Amino acid sequence: MNYPSKIIQETVEQLSKLPGIGKKTALRLTLFLLRQPEEFVKPIAESLLWLKSQAKVCQRCCNIADYDLCNICSNPKREQHIICVVKDVQDVLAIESTHFYTGLYHVLGGLIDPVAGIGPDKINLSQLLQRIKHEPISEVIFALNATIEGDITIHYVAKRIQSIRDVKMTTISRGIPVGGELEYVDETTLGRSLQHRVTL
Amino acid sequence: MNYPSKIIQETVEQLSKLPGIGKKTALRLTLFLLRQPEEFVKPIAESLLWLKSQAKVCQRCCNIADYDLCNICSNPKREQHIICVVKDVQDVLAIESTHFYTGLYHVLGGLIDPVAGIGPDKINLSQLLQRIKHEPISEVIFALNATIEGDITIHYVAKRIQSIRDVKMTTISRGIPVGGELEYVDETTLGRSLQHRVTL
Repeated sequence: MNYPSKIIQETVEQLSKLPGIGKKTALRLTLFLLRQPEEFVKPIAESLLWLKSQAKVCQRCCNIADYDLCNICSNPKREQHIICVVKDVQDVLAIESTHFYTGLYHVLGGLIDPVAGIGPDKINLSQLLQRIKHEPISEVIFALNATIEGDITIHYVAKRIQSIRDVKMTTISRGIPVGGELEYVDETTLGRSLQHRVTL
Repeated sequence: MNYPSKIIQETVEQLSKLPGIGKKTALRLTLFLLRQPEEFVKPIAESLLWLKSQAKVCQRCCNIADYDLCNICSNPKREQHIICVVKDVQDVLAIESTHFYTGLYHVLGGLIDPVAGIGPDKINLSQLLQRIKHEPISEVIFALNATIEGDITIHYVAKRIQSIRDVKMTTISRGIPVGGELEYVDETTLGRSLQHRVTL
């Protein structure tokens, strides 16, 4: 398309790099931003610049953090003997919003997927095994997507944990629909599936 | 929601200020950006910063411009005696993409809407009347939305132009669906409605 100005074209091209935003939506956003005052647009741009430089990965659980440890790992009120293993940060947020869980997390950053070539070395598994070795963990809860990849990951990770020492391992109950993605489940269902977790 | 880090929370809040982007989409975009390299994220932020400082309004037709005049007004190959009156910049882009039109534009920036309290003083009408007075315009094409506001605007603007001098005035043919918005029409229909424009 023939844009009326180079900066419009540049902004449209930049915004349409974002997932789910096509050229037409990008143009709408650009023209919307153009109508807003400087004080509206500048903080959006600045937050993006800060995002990459300020966000860290928690040294303990691989969650996103402002400092070396995330909010949850550095909170002494959280139960230090339970780890909830999740795929990614969205899942931590989804479980936190249920207010049913007061333990710690471990963010795998992905699921084992042999078809896509994602092996155990591509997820944050070694960090989890280190924690099982050195921390007073008495229970590991698997809160992974109810998909084939989720099941493969639970099976593999559970076996590796068992090879280190005896820990109680549970999985959230399949109140969540089979084939469903964790982050879309409503809070009540997700909360209940944490309460009714079953021993592996 | 309890975000794992302040910069995540800040970015989600900033992105969800954009129209059509809720908290959940903003979080997806934020976590997506977090996984991208610096070279991916920085240009997005910079284009937003430049947008407000660099984009200008064309002194002649009120289109968006890089300099005092927009690409179209400063192009001597465009027919200088026809003005196509449109609501906004999206409509200029829609008509340009048909490749049926080689004249000039005038961007009103809005339509007269008595119900919403938008009078003739809130649109770029005085600039258009000045052009009718001082430029060698022989035809004014109205390419406005086929809505009540569009019709009211055509009626009012045509009367004001007539009070200045005799100019041929046309409107794009209603090949576009009644009640429809200009920017969603397919290019062929829009192009044909320009070719088959009817004298007012």
